Amino acid sequence: MTDEKEPIRVGVVGARGRMGQEVCKAVDAADGLDLVAMIDQGDWLFNASDAAAQVVVDFTTPDVVMDNLHWCIEQGINVVVGTSGFTQSRIDRVRAWLKGHPHVGVVIAPNFAVGAVLMMEFAARAARFFESVEIIEQHHPRKLDAPSGTAISTADAIAQARAAAGLGAVPDATKDEVAGARGADLNGIRVHSVRASGLVAHQEVLFGTTGETLTIRHDSYDRVSFMPGVLLAIRSVVERPGLTVGLGNLL
Amino acid sequence: MTDEKEPIRVGVVGARGRMGQEVCKAVDAADGLDLVAMIDQGDWLFNASDAAAQVVVDFTTPDVVMDNLHWCIEQGINVVVGTSGFTQSRIDRVRAWLKGHPHVGVVIAPNFAVGAVLMMEFAARAARFFESVEIIEQHHPRKLDAPSGTAISTADAIAQARAAAGLGAVPDATKDEVAGARGADLNGIRVHSVRASGLVAHQEVLFGTTGETLTIRHDSYDRVSFMPGVLLAIRSVVERPGLTVGLGNLL
Amino acid sequence: MTDEKEPIRVGVVGARGRMGQEVCKAVDAADGLDLVAMIDQGDWLFNASDAAAQVVVDFTTPDVVMDNLHWCIEQGINVVVGTSGFTQSRIDRVRAWLKGHPHVGVVIAPNFAVGAVLMMEFAARAARFFESVEIIEQHHPRKLDAPSGTAISTADAIAQARAAAGLGAVPDATKDEVAGARGADLNGIRVHSVRASGLVAHQEVLFGTTGETLTIRHDSYDRVSFMPGVLLAIRSVVERPGLTVGLGNLL
Amino acid sequence: MTDEKEPIRVGVVGARGRMGQEVCKAVDAADGLDLVAMIDQGDWLFNASDAAAQVVVDFTTPDVVMDNLHWCIEQGINVVVGTSGFTQSRIDRVRAWLKGHPHVGVVIAPNFAVGAVLMMEFAARAARFFESVEIIEQHHPRKLDAPSGTAISTADAIAQARAAAGLGAVPDATKDEVAGARGADLNGIRVHSVRASGLVAHQEVLFGTTGETLTIRHDSYDRVSFMPGVLLAIRSVVERPGLTVGLGNLL
Repeated sequence: MTDEKEPIRVGVVGARGRMGQEVCKAVDAADGLDLVAMIDQGDWLFNASDAAAQVVVDFTTPDVVMDNLHWCIEQGINVVVGTSGFTQSRIDRVRAWLKGHPHVGVVIAPNFAVGAVLMMEFAARAARFFESVEIIEQHHPRKLDAPSGTAISTADAIAQARAAAGLGAVPDATKDEVAGARGADLNGIRVHSVRASGLVAHQEVLFGTTGETLTIRHDSYDRVSFMPGVLLAIRSVVERPGLTVGLGNLL
Repeated sequence: MTDEKEPIRVGVVGARGRMGQEVCKAVDAADGLDLVAMIDQGDWLFNASDAAAQVVVDFTTPDVVMDNLHWCIEQGINVVVGTSGFTQSRIDRVRAWLKGHPHVGVVIAPNFAVGAVLMMEFAARAARFFESVEIIEQHHPRKLDAPSGTAISTADAIAQARAAAGLGAVPDATKDEVAGARGADLNGIRVHSVRASGLVAHQEVLFGTTGETLTIRHDSYDRVSFMPGVLLAIRSVVERPGLTVGLGNLL
Repeated sequence: MTDEKEPIRVGVVGARGRMGQEVCKAVDAADGLDLVAMIDQGDWLFNASDAAAQVVVDFTTPDVVMDNLHWCIEQGINVVVGTSGFTQSRIDRVRAWLKGHPHVGVVIAPNFAVGAVLMMEFAARAARFFESVEIIEQHHPRKLDAPSGTAISTADAIAQARAAAGLGAVPDATKDEVAGARGADLNGIRVHSVRASGLVAHQEVLFGTTGETLTIRHDSYDRVSFMPGVLLAIRSVVERPGLTVGLGNLL
Repeated sequence: MTDEKEPIRVGVVGARGRMGQEVCKAVDAADGLDLVAMIDQGDWLFNASDAAAQVVVDFTTPDVVMDNLHWCIEQGINVVVGTSGFTQSRIDRVRAWLKGHPHVGVVIAPNFAVGAVLMMEFAARAARFFESVEIIEQHHPRKLDAPSGTAISTADAIAQARAAAGLGAVPDATKDEVAGARGADLNGIRVHSVRASGLVAHQEVLFGTTGETLTIRHDSYDRVSFMPGVLLAIRSVVERPGLTVGLGNLL
């Protein structure tokens, strides 16, 4: 007879990918978690339910993640999602699916590194105090999407905070622009995507007002930096029904 | 007959210094504030009481600021202090003086730039999530003190947050050090003071944990960046008896 | 009878602009230089020849600078140009004009700050050793053009150095881009233009190869940083017939 | 019968260390190089001569490297040294040993990353143009020495360039310093050593003069960044008798 909690049973989808492999290692080494299924292209999702997984961690690709999510929710399995590409319409769809399954929890996070989560929190908090803000994200040149999911989420949070504070457009007198110089326009926030060999994953949020700037910068040097956040999400999702977007609320 | 508020009567001590001049200009231009006394070395503080100043702003030097403060509190005049050098023992002394004058307000701030205030707030919030943290502050080479008052305040806030979270010492295997290379040790937090021509006033707080770093950086390019914070402090102090340290609570 | 050199007679065109005013002050204060004409919109260029100016400094705008240059060359007056917007075709035109006036010297520089000149020199030198390179320039939001003239010159120098070393395109796997995220493409070099209040004039050149990056960054905090370069150009141009592009050769 | 060059026979001393392992892998994979001996604590250096090594690469520790070097020079074996701790007196001693062995080449480099080599070259070139300069180096907290060997070499090169240009001391009005805040003083150049989890190996050289700063920054994210430089040194040392300090001359 013991009062120790049963370990949480975890399946990993995308288990052979670069992030998936790290997640498998981290779950395997973690106290209180059991790695019960490793699933990748060509495998059946049923492996997760057959193994009685309570949580599925999904690091796959934008084209399959919605099917995976739908299936897990139908099966009553909680999900932690690190796959990128979650637009507002996708998030709305997940929320709709969850209505029929009120006991299932889903955590979707654009970034699991604690530093990145804090960067987004601080950016949202600082937004109302500065008339200018831009985002510069920097990644290795093998990355397929620009801007990164983290940059898009940060821009969203800033745009919302500015709107709530009644701030207007950021000042910009540019008249003569070589196409693209001023970056992508995401809800009025300019985002610049730098790609260079040697880089890993970095982002800078630059705020400016008269006579001063405030810069919040996050540098990821190694995929292991995401693992504490992934483990936190796994442990939280089983007690957190409904949809949680971003890791901020879990810190 | 009008319901407009009377303007707040403001005296500036250290009025001919670089910061003092800017404060005089800013108070003079601000709605709802009246500049009623400009005092500097050789002038009497009585000028402030004779002019019925409700708030005195003090940008002087560490060797005279305590006398100024004591006099103002005795006179029942509220004070906004931007002078540096406020150790814990000085702060305790001010608090003791205020006990006998419960209606007087004093705001002491190491830095009035909104970006610097947010930097300190964010640093305190992030501290518990990272095993490592160091501060690098950078100023023009005419600065007399090292580290800056802002760096000392930031280090204090971080040290307190780490202690509250039960964090131990930051990891550091240094065995063979040229004296000074590892910076000043302020309650276990390493602080590095860079001095170079061309620089104005800058500070970086670097947090690190496995595989990632988070950097919060503030750049002041111009003294005008401090004025919104000074005006906010003047307007707040008249309705805020007792001691307020830092601008954070006023934002 | 003396062996002291006669002072160089200098006229400034664009004398009431922000840069022009600084140039007038600097020339006026400099040993061996005489400020003999201050010309702006509405004034005649003849004032420069009437005053026997040996050097005209032009900080005007892209739409009038070519006329000014042509007139000075015809008059046999040497010119130092800080106005931006010098494309290759403009430079070729100036060179053609100079053929008929072999004793006239013209210095055209995108940036007169010694740090900016060195940044461009170092960028050209480093280019062949790195497979990746991008430029991020950052300015106040009142700037009309993006990218800046300095960024365009830097990109040109890097593109030439890469071509000379036989390097191919920089690696970039981007498939899914929000328009503008990857910046402007200048001869294959990506350039990002950040605009924010508080900023003055800044540029970063980021080089990357396997496992490492090299960053060269220049920060201008004040227009006075350009004056030593302007004075150097004035003193050099009188002994340097023909066209000189960039200050690099004069250092 | 062939005109192909014989491969260069290479031994590695310190072969089980973190750097040594990478060097063994890189030599093994490189065209024109043969890995003929892997030596570590407890092994005999004779293994290198028995295997007819033409070049020995030494990544060991400051306390054994001088003995290794002396033995190799006596045996007529060329050496590439990446071990840190080379003071001027050590370098003089190696030069003296080489006098008796004019055909032997030794390359001692504080850093083999091309970006670090260029950083040092650029720092030496920029030094004469700026009245202020400081070095901030940043490493993981397991590092034993502070400042790093690269920082010490950079400071030396800058101090020499300033002396050659007739520059005096850097300006510094500091009167009131918490011990260590202003960093280590290396021949008049201030060096700050930051240590934090998550960091790998980084260095920033900050130059300042009126109104502007120039920053040269190198980031090493991975030990593989050193391998191209090590291979270049191996290939160069066999045709370069005498002592070469730094990789700069080989680029």
